[in-house]
Amino acid sequence: MTRVVFLLVPGLHLLDLAGPAQVFSTAADLGHGYRLAYVAEREDVPTAQGLPLHAATAWPELSADDLVLVPGWRTSLAARGAGFLSAPVLGRLAAHHAAGGTVASVCSGAYALGRAGLLDGRRCTTHHELQDELARRHPRATVERDVLYVVDERVVTSAGIASGIDLALHLVAVRHGPAAAARVARSMVVHTRRNGDERQSSAMLRYRAHLSDVVHRAQDVIDARFTEPLPLAELAATAGVSERTLTRRFGAATGLTPLRYQQRLRVERAEHLIGRGATVEAAARAAGFQDARMLRRLRGREAAPGGSAAVPRAPAAAAAATAPSTPSAPTAPAAGPERPPHGRRPLHAQR
Amino acid sequence: MTRVVFLLVPGLHLLDLAGPAQVFSTAADLGHGYRLAYVAEREDVPTAQGLPLHAATAWPELSADDLVLVPGWRTSLAARGAGFLSAPVLGRLAAHHAAGGTVASVCSGAYALGRAGLLDGRRCTTHHELQDELARRHPRATVERDVLYVVDERVVTSAGIASGIDLALHLVAVRHGPAAAARVARSMVVHTRRNGDERQSSAMLRYRAHLSDVVHRAQDVIDARFTEPLPLAELAATAGVSERTLTRRFGAATGLTPLRYQQRLRVERAEHLIGRGATVEAAARAAGFQDARMLRRLRGREAAPGGSAAVPRAPAAAAAATAPSTPSAPTAPAAGPERPPHGRRPLHAQR
Repeated sequence: MTRVVFLLVPGLHLLDLAGPAQVFSTAADLGHGYRLAYVAEREDVPTAQGLPLHAATAWPELSADDLVLVPGWRTSLAARGAGFLSAPVLGRLAAHHAAGGTVASVCSGAYALGRAGLLDGRRCTTHHELQDELARRHPRATVERDVLYVVDERVVTSAGIASGIDLALHLVAVRHGPAAAARVARSMVVHTRRNGDERQSSAMLRYRAHLSDVVHRAQDVIDARFTEPLPLAELAATAGVSERTLTRRFGAATGLTPLRYQQRLRVERAEHLIGRGATVEAAARAAGFQDARMLRRLRGREAAPGGSAAVPRAPAAAAAATAPSTPSAPTAPAAGPERPPHGRRPLHAQR
Repeated sequence: MTRVVFLLVPGLHLLDLAGPAQVFSTAADLGHGYRLAYVAEREDVPTAQGLPLHAATAWPELSADDLVLVPGWRTSLAARGAGFLSAPVLGRLAAHHAAGGTVASVCSGAYALGRAGLLDGRRCTTHHELQDELARRHPRATVERDVLYVVDERVVTSAGIASGIDLALHLVAVRHGPAAAARVARSMVVHTRRNGDERQSSAMLRYRAHLSDVVHRAQDVIDARFTEPLPLAELAATAGVSERTLTRRFGAATGLTPLRYQQRLRVERAEHLIGRGATVEAAARAAGFQDARMLRRLRGREAAPGGSAAVPRAPAAAAAATAPSTPSAPTAPAAGPERPPHGRRPLHAQR
């Protein structure tokens, strides 16, 4: 059971708090062990949106597995920095980190981490309008720009307001895997987002930026069982549509066929295993391929110039504009980023 | 001054409430007239995330310009529907709508609107896991799937949890224009999202799904002054980078040059005016073109087969992969959806 303790500063932004709280509460609903707590220096906590909150003044017992998160407060008050937080509370933040715990902030919450001494010598970020000021106040910190969040040695800082959702989803993905994060995001009707220039960590998160319930349901099955053979008929039955409809909608939403999506997950798993020392043959079998041949072919394709390994996803509208009329036709748009470099072939015929 | 009244139901999801509250509060910070209020049947309101809230029991005076919004509550309690809301409160919802006001819901909040009789004969939506049940309870309602929100005659319903942000940004865009909504979204570090299969309403919202602060700052200037000549040097100075850097980053983030982006806004404005009866010549001048010639050329390009009018945006990674090394080169990727159908030409040379 991981505790997530929100340290509430007067004048906080509701969304800075609600985004991460909703992520961890949804993760708990889905069976992951999180318990949320809200602490403040006084029981009554005013917010920037005018809604009063009620917090505890006593902190729960914390262990190294727990997370303390400081949501940001109205930036016009940022000049006073973490003046709202007393030295003992700032000391708690530092002590939790020193004991091996994780400390996080959203938006101007980074000021609190800075005053607790947690940003010195570390990379961090905050709301884009506050980055210069944070850098001035903490010259030993490296303030990153154009990112959603920064993780440096159990100090996790996010950019403005809604980026707290991205931060929390990242922490869920690290602890429970990308499929768990994708399920949480799906339940909350958010998309996982790429962090600045970095490549998104997993195809399980990358191909979810669409609104098709049918396709999400098929992806849930593939994510959970991608190493097994998954006949299109079974996927279609699970999603409650015909094979033809599933393939069409899958292509419109993701730019891929269901099989191609499954292959991506297999290749990703295999590469992960190879990175940990497995042979190509063993990795291929563990990922669900019959042998290493198909894995080599798919890896070669994605690494080839013009290959699509670094492309997050085809925009749905572009894919939809050239969606195939039969399930055996390739779903990749002719000129889109998902075009297979070796020409157009019926993808389902490749297995 | 528009009042936004949040009707809080016990067990509500924090994010259902915080998303829209943050949008309207940010809009108020940016100079638009919104005043937020929180009402409930009892002062102490428990939430699904375990954080108690404090609301008023007395409603403010409402006028037709005002909005009443019902955030959703934990869905395991949804079986009891809006049993938490008494008949007099449900009557207030119906009366506000009957008086010309707008009523909105997030997620399971649609149950409250349904019990108030506001969904009968209307299109609506709710969280994807609750859509079947809502349709069963209200057979005269048309429950839409795979959308973020539905607007039908001042009854505005959104899908799950985070889609309340999309709903609120839509309402801001309708009342104050897409540039205002883009500024709110930018300040909150959210992206505006396309609503299901519909085309996003404005290029001002469509090309903001990136994290580059420099590019956002340049877009802020273009959005505000797109009918004027905007030399690249001036945009670059505003953004605090060289012309070359701005063009490179603009291309990586949006798939367009700054000029091409500005032209999109001009074409969009001109088409809006033509749709309202202006001549092409008058619309062209009002949108900032010297005469109708360039407008005709650009409209012809976007309407041509293979043109890019219906494409929301090139994925940043795809554009970055072929980003030009000089500012005079076209930023559209060779095989990407933004490719001009008439071949590659230096776009800045077109003015």
